[in-house]
Amino acid sequence: MANDNATPLVSAFDPRSDLPGALGEWRALLGDSNVLVDDQALTHYSRTTSSSSRRPAAILKPGTRDEVVQLVSIARRCRTPLYPLSTGQNWGYGDACAVYDGQVIVDLGRMNRIEHVDSALGYAVIEPGVTQGQLSRHLAEQGVPYWIDCTGSGPNSSLIGNILERGFGHSPYGNRFQSFSGMEVVLGSGEVLRTGFGHFPGARTTHLYPYGIGPYLDGIFTQSNFGIVTKLGLWLVPIPESFCPYIVLFDEDKDLLEALPQLQKLRLDRILQSVPHIGNDLRALASDAPFPRDRLPGHARLTPEVRAALRKGAGIGAWSMSGAFYGTSRQVALHKRLLKRALAKVDAKVIFLPPHILAAGQLFVRLFGHLAPFRGLEKKIRLGSALADMHSGKPTGAFLRGCYWRHQQGVPADFSDQTDLARERIGIMWMAPIIPFLREDLALLNREMDELFARFDFDCHVTVNMINERALAAVYTIDYDAEDEAETRRGVACYEAGVRRLFELGYPLYRASVRGMGLLASARDDEFAGTVARLKRALDPEGIIAPGRYDGF
Amino acid sequence: MANDNATPLVSAFDPRSDLPGALGEWRALLGDSNVLVDDQALTHYSRTTSSSSRRPAAILKPGTRDEVVQLVSIARRCRTPLYPLSTGQNWGYGDACAVYDGQVIVDLGRMNRIEHVDSALGYAVIEPGVTQGQLSRHLAEQGVPYWIDCTGSGPNSSLIGNILERGFGHSPYGNRFQSFSGMEVVLGSGEVLRTGFGHFPGARTTHLYPYGIGPYLDGIFTQSNFGIVTKLGLWLVPIPESFCPYIVLFDEDKDLLEALPQLQKLRLDRILQSVPHIGNDLRALASDAPFPRDRLPGHARLTPEVRAALRKGAGIGAWSMSGAFYGTSRQVALHKRLLKRALAKVDAKVIFLPPHILAAGQLFVRLFGHLAPFRGLEKKIRLGSALADMHSGKPTGAFLRGCYWRHQQGVPADFSDQTDLARERIGIMWMAPIIPFLREDLALLNREMDELFARFDFDCHVTVNMINERALAAVYTIDYDAEDEAETRRGVACYEAGVRRLFELGYPLYRASVRGMGLLASARDDEFAGTVARLKRALDPEGIIAPGRYDGF
Repeated sequence: MANDNATPLVSAFDPRSDLPGALGEWRALLGDSNVLVDDQALTHYSRTTSSSSRRPAAILKPGTRDEVVQLVSIARRCRTPLYPLSTGQNWGYGDACAVYDGQVIVDLGRMNRIEHVDSALGYAVIEPGVTQGQLSRHLAEQGVPYWIDCTGSGPNSSLIGNILERGFGHSPYGNRFQSFSGMEVVLGSGEVLRTGFGHFPGARTTHLYPYGIGPYLDGIFTQSNFGIVTKLGLWLVPIPESFCPYIVLFDEDKDLLEALPQLQKLRLDRILQSVPHIGNDLRALASDAPFPRDRLPGHARLTPEVRAALRKGAGIGAWSMSGAFYGTSRQVALHKRLLKRALAKVDAKVIFLPPHILAAGQLFVRLFGHLAPFRGLEKKIRLGSALADMHSGKPTGAFLRGCYWRHQQGVPADFSDQTDLARERIGIMWMAPIIPFLREDLALLNREMDELFARFDFDCHVTVNMINERALAAVYTIDYDAEDEAETRRGVACYEAGVRRLFELGYPLYRASVRGMGLLASARDDEFAGTVARLKRALDPEGIIAPGRYDGF
Repeated sequence: MANDNATPLVSAFDPRSDLPGALGEWRALLGDSNVLVDDQALTHYSRTTSSSSRRPAAILKPGTRDEVVQLVSIARRCRTPLYPLSTGQNWGYGDACAVYDGQVIVDLGRMNRIEHVDSALGYAVIEPGVTQGQLSRHLAEQGVPYWIDCTGSGPNSSLIGNILERGFGHSPYGNRFQSFSGMEVVLGSGEVLRTGFGHFPGARTTHLYPYGIGPYLDGIFTQSNFGIVTKLGLWLVPIPESFCPYIVLFDEDKDLLEALPQLQKLRLDRILQSVPHIGNDLRALASDAPFPRDRLPGHARLTPEVRAALRKGAGIGAWSMSGAFYGTSRQVALHKRLLKRALAKVDAKVIFLPPHILAAGQLFVRLFGHLAPFRGLEKKIRLGSALADMHSGKPTGAFLRGCYWRHQQGVPADFSDQTDLARERIGIMWMAPIIPFLREDLALLNREMDELFARFDFDCHVTVNMINERALAAVYTIDYDAEDEAETRRGVACYEAGVRRLFELGYPLYRASVRGMGLLASARDDEFAGTVARLKRALDPEGIIAPGRYDGF
């Protein structure tokens, strides 16, 4: 297995650390079954899709906030560094791995209570183990007139985990940092902090207005290691009267680039109110079939000819954009018209997928999908349905199929929403810079990254996401064969060169992987890193929580 | 003058403080003309509208960020506590006053550079001295296709100052914490921190995406005393194709309460995309004429009869709501229809004020306003124009006229946008709780507060502002006669009782005045206060920046 011998990372172990003593106390606190040190468990939490395997010293599975408080107190006394995670589905960014070998993973998956759902004002108070699928089902079962904002990472990923990484979804609440209010945090000091108005006894607005009075603290508990978030008030998406997913197809790179100013204007004018995603042809191809190894043996990058042929065969263009409109019937109708009108002068095909069309398509495919003229239609209907689901609060694993691009067996027949990408030996590494919402920046960066990927013989899978009105979150993905040592090493080299280049070009990443943290921490030593270090000492004096996680950015 | 002998505040002076030494060094740094200790200057910065006068030890007027760095370094060495302010127009919350006597005010008004305006992506990089009026004029002069989000506090108030207090405006960017990206902060330690991506050399996204990578720090520099913000990237409101201000009039309390669920739904569904404000009759009456002292001598509260008569005379109802629609012509037309439809079943009158109607009205009043049947029309047209201006990026002082309610001379003939409320001896104190966006909470609180105000013989001026989709920012204002010692004491007692009651009811304030900080700091001693204190020590070890400001919340 290709571990990263090239970039050895220091262990976070303190020489005074008393792991055996801590384990004894944790067992007394949590019970033997919630303190894991067996090889199988340690191996499970060492699995990685991003070639940054770390072997933890143990896994703790607390069931309550008070147990978290106690286990942190034990860790401080015994000087054993912890590494909290919610459900460990941080695919391509570190999965369920800690940043350093020898850290003790605190798996919060058992803390999966939906403490409260407010159907009037539309929020849910949840614990870190609550998954997208769980909350989605709960709302549907209870008839709550709200959806969740979904990501494409599958139904088993944690909502809080993603928010704390500052991930983004697809709906009007896709800019997730703006969609929660009121945290409960167990600090490194062991104290329980309630942010916003939450610390005022009887406050009725903790989950309705995030900032409280006095300093607004929530931001410092995202992408950091100051505490363990044990509860949060998540804002839900009101189910609209009308809902219409759409796809926009661009044949050539230049078509997308020409459309970009119009799209920015639509986003700025709040006609595109959700977070549309734009993927290149490779993203679409990868979810259909793996890399054609037979046609290009010994290579991990398509030739232009093969890529053109695959694109033609799949009937897709260079870029596909997906999003959805939400509102009253007339609002949705108007926004559909405005989107069409804005793109009238560029070469783009706008396809609307309202629920009744999708339902008819599903029926049609069921009846006639086996007939030759309609082969391929099924895939498109399935993709459309998955998009519609994701935009309307039903998480799906469908978009993880593309991660099998360089997998030797391709997507398995039994692939499902429950598939664990790390166990499947998938190889993916994401580089996710924020760039200005401008044609020139996107053109420059796509060219730069494609050249860089070509140097390392990888295909450059891209999505570009309209995270806000002024910026795009671009994601450049290295899909590599994790079973192939040489290819894995090349992938890591490509990743490191890519990240360096992004910073050089002035497009820093919005999020780091476990691997990226090691890479970047050493590169930064400025007043920001100094400030973060001082905050760390203030809130976690013994440095017990996740040493190395977003340190020094 | 009624100072607050009832609640003596400790001085922030350190016995080791060397003010004379510091003054010498500051004079060498800034020049004599920018270090003020004369009585006139100290008196100017002691003026208050909120009965919480504090006399500073000196006033410093730095012109650059580097001067701020140097003056902080001198303050640390000489242990002289500073109190930064932007333009000192924090009306009703402390004005240009420090929290404690003897603090050295750092007036950032000279730092009024508009460093950069990006007309493509719509942001401005500004210093703390940049006022609403200045940026508004600059954008108009340069033909930049963006407006600013305005508050009603007049053209001379600082944009950064208001954002750091977490104030809110009226436009779609009225939730101001969501409308800036990238701060520069001089910490108490003297270091210069650039937040978000700003600390990465050459980053092109500092002012486009606020969170950066690693902990998102900006929140801790709002409502706090950890540093002096010297620069910020402010997002601007795109000038829409169509724009239509509106007023909704509700005759009775019950009409507003009945409408509230519909309004919440409109806000949640992003049909009301800006931050509509709803004011009670007293707010409207107060901007026309002062309290009728002749009819109710010895009282500061209208009788129900007089209030009803005044309301009738002014032709207004119990509540008036104001807002504006922004978008394409068809979006605006649709949203107008949806607002009308949503309010069809309640007793409410919706009046749209599109620019051409206002222009015609202004012309009409100019021609015929002197004729008897059209008296009063002028006031309405003037108010409509002021609302339209404020919603379209042109700040106005018109809404400060209401602050003269208890002033013995009423609004002066020469009142203008330039009027300094503190110099005018205006008496106002705001209590601004956040409440759930629910009929029951608003009904309960309006009743409670009106009873409390009645106990102290004050009129209860109210605005209710749709700060987000789930919460209302209510503002209950005590208008008192600052020249009347007994009334001022009664005002302070009413304020203190009101604030206590708000916390008891579970509706904490979103913002504190200089007076409120002293009142509340002693009431809170929990893990939140402890955390804030630890952050303070981490970022400002000598406690030099604004001791007492939002400490202990």
